[in-house]
Amino acid sequence: MSAKNAFYAQSGGVTAVINASACGVIETARKHSDKIGKVYAGRNGIIGALREELIDTSLESLEDIAALRHTPSGAFGSCRYKLKNLEENKREYERLIEVFRAHDIGYFFYNGGGDSQDTAYKVSQLSEKMGYPITCVGIPKTVDNDLPFTDCCPGFGSVAKYVAISTKEAAMDIASMCESSTKVFILEVMGRHAGWIAAAGGLAGKNSTEAPHIILFPEIPFDRDAFLTRVDECVKEFGYCVVVASEGAQYEDGRFVADAGQKDAFGHTQLGGVAPTLANMVKQSLGYKYHWAVADYLQRAARHIASATDVTQAYAMGQAAVEFSVNGKNAVMPIIQRESSKPYKWTVGEAPLSQVANQEKKMPIHYITDDGFGITEECREYLAPLIRGEDYPPYDDAGIPIYVKLQNTLVNKKLRSDFKV
Amino acid sequence: MSAKNAFYAQSGGVTAVINASACGVIETARKHSDKIGKVYAGRNGIIGALREELIDTSLESLEDIAALRHTPSGAFGSCRYKLKNLEENKREYERLIEVFRAHDIGYFFYNGGGDSQDTAYKVSQLSEKMGYPITCVGIPKTVDNDLPFTDCCPGFGSVAKYVAISTKEAAMDIASMCESSTKVFILEVMGRHAGWIAAAGGLAGKNSTEAPHIILFPEIPFDRDAFLTRVDECVKEFGYCVVVASEGAQYEDGRFVADAGQKDAFGHTQLGGVAPTLANMVKQSLGYKYHWAVADYLQRAARHIASATDVTQAYAMGQAAVEFSVNGKNAVMPIIQRESSKPYKWTVGEAPLSQVANQEKKMPIHYITDDGFGITEECREYLAPLIRGEDYPPYDDAGIPIYVKLQNTLVNKKLRSDFKV
Repeated sequence: MSAKNAFYAQSGGVTAVINASACGVIETARKHSDKIGKVYAGRNGIIGALREELIDTSLESLEDIAALRHTPSGAFGSCRYKLKNLEENKREYERLIEVFRAHDIGYFFYNGGGDSQDTAYKVSQLSEKMGYPITCVGIPKTVDNDLPFTDCCPGFGSVAKYVAISTKEAAMDIASMCESSTKVFILEVMGRHAGWIAAAGGLAGKNSTEAPHIILFPEIPFDRDAFLTRVDECVKEFGYCVVVASEGAQYEDGRFVADAGQKDAFGHTQLGGVAPTLANMVKQSLGYKYHWAVADYLQRAARHIASATDVTQAYAMGQAAVEFSVNGKNAVMPIIQRESSKPYKWTVGEAPLSQVANQEKKMPIHYITDDGFGITEECREYLAPLIRGEDYPPYDDAGIPIYVKLQNTLVNKKLRSDFKV
Repeated sequence: MSAKNAFYAQSGGVTAVINASACGVIETARKHSDKIGKVYAGRNGIIGALREELIDTSLESLEDIAALRHTPSGAFGSCRYKLKNLEENKREYERLIEVFRAHDIGYFFYNGGGDSQDTAYKVSQLSEKMGYPITCVGIPKTVDNDLPFTDCCPGFGSVAKYVAISTKEAAMDIASMCESSTKVFILEVMGRHAGWIAAAGGLAGKNSTEAPHIILFPEIPFDRDAFLTRVDECVKEFGYCVVVASEGAQYEDGRFVADAGQKDAFGHTQLGGVAPTLANMVKQSLGYKYHWAVADYLQRAARHIASATDVTQAYAMGQAAVEFSVNGKNAVMPIIQRESSKPYKWTVGEAPLSQVANQEKKMPIHYITDDGFGITEECREYLAPLIRGEDYPPYDDAGIPIYVKLQNTLVNKKLRSDFKV
């Protein structure tokens, strides 16, 4: 049997280290040229497969592929696109097979979160259900840290580091100013369903008397009165109050705090912003001067302050995916298994895609303090190693990081038909 | 004459490098013990002088003082407090003299922006107008980069670097996602009156075809239609549009874009947020999916990615202030003089406080492109050296920067009277 080509795609929200996984896939595949031919990357993820827009990574230099390790974002483009069930949209699967066959693709590496692992699982069934043999391995990625089985998700550690450091720096700023100016600072971070990222803000302080004084988790129903009472207590006790709020903070009835009825001048509901909403509450109820920040994409793109642990693990997951595939494993996803926290030790394990798909790992409730506003020691022990180490990108003479931009040359199309996505 | 003590205070919004100036002051003063006794720092700036809350920096170790160089925020506390004119509030000046005399203070170093240099100038007049001899030297600091005479202001370069890098990283993120998701990203940055910080976002790209595609300056009246037209053009041409908006972006009539009529559910005007306001315009007029971020304190506190040029200059300004004072100069402020841009060369100069006070340096109009949405080559040439070089803080094993927290021991009060501030 001659070496089959591989298809690699990035899926869902990109991260500071998803390209490190891509680097791991491509560099490892190049070492297994007896089994894997070329690595084609989907232009804009799985959409690239459906449109037959395949990027030939073999045309990229060794240096450029190596530079993926320190380049944030998705080098080949990503997408938010979820394949339906085989029964619901057989047309898409037939198209995939058509494209895979045309380009002699025998390996499928899908780099993404829960939805993406679901897609990877569906593709892995092509072999059985539609008679097209393909080796299918998922690669975990999500800043939300909500995949099951794996101890953590590549992408999370770097966001966590960014949020912890940003919280610390902003807290020091407000501490300097609070005597005569700002009393309350609110940082809004990602995490619509799980509070992992907000929890990482807790690493800015060593304990509950240090900022951040309040963390708002999606897991804990938002209680306006309790929140305002605590803000007031902190200002009186410490002189200021630092809040890290998950964008997913919500009331008991499931309404997002961010959606709590703000309207613009035209009467349209104003979308988003748990931080300004909370700031407004503080202003109206307590009258304190406030500042707020919304980190948004900055947090997940912040390769300049990536966690070395995270970069290493992201690369290792890409590498392991390829090694699994050449060793005959199928329909699996490499995972990170924690052997110990002190000292931090981890190994690469595996989980079956059938069980990974569409499961969400919430924060354990014992990671949150009884008052609902902080993280426990157990949580600190879990989080701390994930933000350990700095993995700085190189910089140019102008003071800007040198991130690689690949050629991204498309393979000539072999199919006559287009496919609308 | 025995050595007189010195009073040093931090004033106004703190920065990533104002402590580097403090480090320069204290380390240099320690070398001139024949002329300068102890350096007392005002607890929370000038308020500390009025309240007789003086921090004895001689009790801090060499290591801790050295660590100020890589520690953001104001290590002694800052304040927003502007002395009135001598004629309007003689009581305050009499109190300053009372405190200075009680603690044998003969040097006054005031580290701040325009308002603060005005205060420093007023204090320098004590000598003449109230018969208390004091040597008074201002130290420039402001992220807004709006002080006159000096080529740039310590604090600005690091914000500029943060904004340039954050813009680049977020732009790469949205470029990865735009095929099937977010099309417009808006980053709100500081600068209520001057567009220097927004301009720095322009360094994320090499020219006008690279992100950011639109910069909104306070200097250019905001034109809603022109803005939306340009956003639409960018999305059609590049697939996405990245906007860096100054918080001070305003309409022709001086209304801030951020204040443009948003009300909450209770009918109260919703404060702030040019980014969400612009995002809402984009959504309503063009229908594009958007993301927005507000960097707020994160940008000016981001010591983790400080500009090496900025750190060096901040230290040099503190050092020069002390050297000026021991060489008999009075009522001056050290400044940064650019000798050349390529290669970047600068020297320390000086400006009289009488002329620095209350002047604001706007962006030259030829630094902004004709369409009002970008920066010119001349602007790039000015900005580029200011963000050059990385000056990383040390990190602990937990992956968090090691920023110093001083003892901040107060000197025993010698005066019986309190002074309410």
